[in-house]
Amino acid sequence: MIGSEGTLGIVTKAIVKITKKFEAVKTFLASFNSIDDASNAVSGMIARGIIPAGLEMMDRVAVGAIEKFGHAGYPEDAEAVLLIELDGLKEEVDALEPPVIDECKKHGARDVRIARSEEERMKLWVGRKSAGGAFGVLKPNYFVEDCTVPRSKLPEALRRVKLIGSKYGLTIANLSHAGDGNLHPCILYDSRNETEKQTVLRAGLEIAKQLLDLGGTISGEHGIGIAKLELMPLAFSKSDFSAMAKIKASFDRDNLSNPGKVVSPSGPVSVGKPG
Amino acid sequence: MIGSEGTLGIVTKAIVKITKKFEAVKTFLASFNSIDDASNAVSGMIARGIIPAGLEMMDRVAVGAIEKFGHAGYPEDAEAVLLIELDGLKEEVDALEPPVIDECKKHGARDVRIARSEEERMKLWVGRKSAGGAFGVLKPNYFVEDCTVPRSKLPEALRRVKLIGSKYGLTIANLSHAGDGNLHPCILYDSRNETEKQTVLRAGLEIAKQLLDLGGTISGEHGIGIAKLELMPLAFSKSDFSAMAKIKASFDRDNLSNPGKVVSPSGPVSVGKPG
Repeated sequence: MIGSEGTLGIVTKAIVKITKKFEAVKTFLASFNSIDDASNAVSGMIARGIIPAGLEMMDRVAVGAIEKFGHAGYPEDAEAVLLIELDGLKEEVDALEPPVIDECKKHGARDVRIARSEEERMKLWVGRKSAGGAFGVLKPNYFVEDCTVPRSKLPEALRRVKLIGSKYGLTIANLSHAGDGNLHPCILYDSRNETEKQTVLRAGLEIAKQLLDLGGTISGEHGIGIAKLELMPLAFSKSDFSAMAKIKASFDRDNLSNPGKVVSPSGPVSVGKPG
Repeated sequence: MIGSEGTLGIVTKAIVKITKKFEAVKTFLASFNSIDDASNAVSGMIARGIIPAGLEMMDRVAVGAIEKFGHAGYPEDAEAVLLIELDGLKEEVDALEPPVIDECKKHGARDVRIARSEEERMKLWVGRKSAGGAFGVLKPNYFVEDCTVPRSKLPEALRRVKLIGSKYGLTIANLSHAGDGNLHPCILYDSRNETEKQTVLRAGLEIAKQLLDLGGTISGEHGIGIAKLELMPLAFSKSDFSAMAKIKASFDRDNLSNPGKVVSPSGPVSVGKPG
């Protein structure tokens, strides 16, 4: 139901499972002189079996916007910062603090800070969470990609995004759920400038193509909807589309459920009886 | 791929994620004077947010066979025993020991034992794991159901299974993955006796029907394959089968992938072009 984005039916009832909140939480901010160093620290943590509840990477452009907008206390001269959050039992979180710091330092972290109060922790998170709004201090609009790449390809992926930004003369701020290999390159622009808008769309397409080449996907969490429809043919073959259309028709012969989304390679997908 | 039991394609590559073994494990054996008490202890633990790695229920018939076969040290006069295993960090496992014992005692456990060595732990598990073979001391064959019911319906489900056993004069041993609401009523019989075999098949069908009435499913983990094909029409409607056949045809027009399994309401399913 979730992956199909509402194209295969409707939810008539949902039973929610509520799990307990973890008793302890610890939040780290690590700053690095390069995106490669930060990416390698991410890989190092995962390889050590540490699975943080949050593992966010922000690049220099993103940090600059956030600091100009709201003063989260991020270092503006760092090329990349990692926001790392552990949760679990107190003993578990305490035990993981040294290896997290160790992996950051080992991969060249200039500094690792730990939030010492809930207020400090909130300040760190408000920075990350306000990033979308913060970009407004630089440009009125932004176009966000949602690709994933294998975690080991994160440095190469961000290098390619940077090159595309330079090529088109565009400012790109990068927010990544680095622990999942999920990138959100945000191309900043002004939608009132039609030429710039077209350039952004071309650059976005090129980013998606490049990240697919690295073994990625065109959506990590935001879905396809209408916005990413034109990218679908880059990721899926004609026979994939044929199977998807037939599956939709198996449940929804009259194309009533969220028509024209996800499975349409160009415009509304032809359903009706497959054959 | 797993749910379709090989009917929708073939696996060409599998990437295995290896996770760390937990540092601590603790295994409990609790005995009860009734299946209701044992079921209520299960519900009590789950309601308290305790999710054991293993939560197995065995009834008096199963325990009797296991003890006659291999002497696992289970109490033969109990109506039900629970084999409970916690794993995780040492602190976590230690912290959960008192509430596990508390829930068992609160629901009338006569006795709760904890395995004090790996050898004792293994002995407890060998009992459970040898149950299938142990039934051979009573009858040469057994027919096993694999239904699930909502956990809260476990006592009612086991009461109904018992009534069906009495009605047909059959011995039924019950092994349940109680934490998942997954029942394995094992009907013991001798396949050389054709009349008895037919009675067993009728009783098995009745058990499945009764458990479906309680909001259950016809398979919890063993799948449908061929053995449970005849139960499919009890759980699914004609329009369900139509959708399933169309989905199969979307991927496998020529019906090459595991034909005749799972989606066939009676005999090999008709695939080819749907319409």
